[in-house]
Amino acid sequence: MSRTEIGSLGEFGLINHLTKNIELNNASTIVGVGDDAAVIDHYGRQTVITTDLLIEGVHFDLAYTPLKHLGYKSVVVNLSDVYAMNATPTQITMSIGISNRFSVEALDDFYDGVYTACERYKVDLVGGDTSSSQKGFIISVTAIGEVAPDKFVKRSTANKGDLICVSGDLGAAFLGLTLLEREKGIYLENPQIQPDLENETYVVGRLLKPEARKDIIEFFAEQNIIPTAMMDISDGLSSELLHICNQSNLGCRLHEDKLPIIDETRNAAFKFGLDPTVCALNGGEDYELVFTAKQDDYDKLMQNGDISIIGYTVNAEDGKKFLSKGGNSFDIIAQGWNALK
Amino acid sequence: MSRTEIGSLGEFGLINHLTKNIELNNASTIVGVGDDAAVIDHYGRQTVITTDLLIEGVHFDLAYTPLKHLGYKSVVVNLSDVYAMNATPTQITMSIGISNRFSVEALDDFYDGVYTACERYKVDLVGGDTSSSQKGFIISVTAIGEVAPDKFVKRSTANKGDLICVSGDLGAAFLGLTLLEREKGIYLENPQIQPDLENETYVVGRLLKPEARKDIIEFFAEQNIIPTAMMDISDGLSSELLHICNQSNLGCRLHEDKLPIIDETRNAAFKFGLDPTVCALNGGEDYELVFTAKQDDYDKLMQNGDISIIGYTVNAEDGKKFLSKGGNSFDIIAQGWNALK
Repeated sequence: MSRTEIGSLGEFGLINHLTKNIELNNASTIVGVGDDAAVIDHYGRQTVITTDLLIEGVHFDLAYTPLKHLGYKSVVVNLSDVYAMNATPTQITMSIGISNRFSVEALDDFYDGVYTACERYKVDLVGGDTSSSQKGFIISVTAIGEVAPDKFVKRSTANKGDLICVSGDLGAAFLGLTLLEREKGIYLENPQIQPDLENETYVVGRLLKPEARKDIIEFFAEQNIIPTAMMDISDGLSSELLHICNQSNLGCRLHEDKLPIIDETRNAAFKFGLDPTVCALNGGEDYELVFTAKQDDYDKLMQNGDISIIGYTVNAEDGKKFLSKGGNSFDIIAQGWNALK
Repeated sequence: MSRTEIGSLGEFGLINHLTKNIELNNASTIVGVGDDAAVIDHYGRQTVITTDLLIEGVHFDLAYTPLKHLGYKSVVVNLSDVYAMNATPTQITMSIGISNRFSVEALDDFYDGVYTACERYKVDLVGGDTSSSQKGFIISVTAIGEVAPDKFVKRSTANKGDLICVSGDLGAAFLGLTLLEREKGIYLENPQIQPDLENETYVVGRLLKPEARKDIIEFFAEQNIIPTAMMDISDGLSSELLHICNQSNLGCRLHEDKLPIIDETRNAAFKFGLDPTVCALNGGEDYELVFTAKQDDYDKLMQNGDISIIGYTVNAEDGKKFLSKGGNSFDIIAQGWNALK
């Protein structure tokens, strides 16, 4: 019997392999596997659903992650997927697997963060599952959202000549991780002893307590903008942009001088001898939105100081190119996260 | 700083503790935490959502669980929660955390079971998350279902004098587990080597490949029966019945001679020196439905050979009593699963 190693397929290859033969039975399934969230028709109106699994030692390290922040982030990363469909999150379920090294007080800290995120984003915690775990803390969140009929935005619907845009700034979360990994002390068995983050910098905050871009979705609604394609940036800008291009059968041009990188991020990058541009392209977990929009929406988009236009789409045969400040052109490659290697 | 051990609260105590301060923000949230599934209003129509986390070494043992069966069961246990709301499942999401000891072929076996269940129950797999795990196989499933407006059935709405009913037969899954645990050999590192179950008995099948009671929900719809309260039996009949009684503020009478226990289960129990009644009351994972119904529905219910009427509800102050064949009366206590102890 043959044995194929999972790592040989990569995360996306594995997902493709496992889901390639899906047959849909329900007319209510509008969008299935392969986007930030699924879209389900409920009697003519549409809801979206998305889910994430977060595993200690893979997705987070309790040596430097306060449990309250972890609870908050667990919710936010799922809401970010809902916003990436141009939808508004309404409910979540939260399942946790815990070992008895956690006290009730430690779990209270975690749920403090969960409820703070629910309050901030006006979503309801409606269910979940509480289980023991032999080793490690396991978190599974599912988020549900609503979207006005046919206003949901997929990855596969960008058109040639669209503007490529990104919200906020990029690269900071990766540098926060780099900083914390370096400063990571001996793993503390007791999850109640939290690192003191009072005087930490912007980049650490971006990693430990990201926000989802609710405001951008609200801006779209106010301005009657519907992006032609959209994703949230969890694996890194390069990786996400390649998804949009590949699924929309397009190429792109991305301008280095347009990438939104703020001083705190540049300074942190220089401290570690890293290129800020590489951090912005390949660093994950910024939870900003990358989207494509019609050129007609240019003036509207420029009104929002938190949106940067970083490039445009071209025909697939013209390739996916990064144009450096020095005038050179490089193929965009995904160096994003592949936790299965 | 005080430390409260999780085990001191128990699973249900912990859930109550963590969710007691939930405030709901969305008018669309009809039923939140505390039932088999949540109910969400989508523009006047209702959908249900439920989620389960399954962890290797806690919920299943790969030494005797074929991966295909595990995939099937992971789906079915969630669908069972949807049926327990008197709803019809339509979509699921499936997230897995896997270590590199799994091959692609092993995962294909798992997904074979997932897709077989999707096909059998006519649900669509619409999303998920694939992640690495440092240790152990982790499965998180969320199921979505539809229910005709105001036809959903909670745990808290039974009335005094209602019939207590159960579908199918009880106790077999627990005996299947007992048998497999005894026969369990040395744990096999390679998940591709599966135990041969061709000549195994009914009780093993009930544990490894349970079915959800789609047929019972369809029977209710055909007969215009709406149970007054309902749950699925995952932790054991006693435990579930106490939930219904406590949440409905009722007592009950349960008749030993009415408990549906089939010969295969009795024989397996005797082989292990166990009381079949105790297995039926406290053994979990049968995934049958326990429900209460109006006395007016008696004739209709008796038409279905797969439904047993096992008792009735009384005032809370009259207690929750089990009436033995020998004429004795005992208080019903939950010896159900408490994985956090």
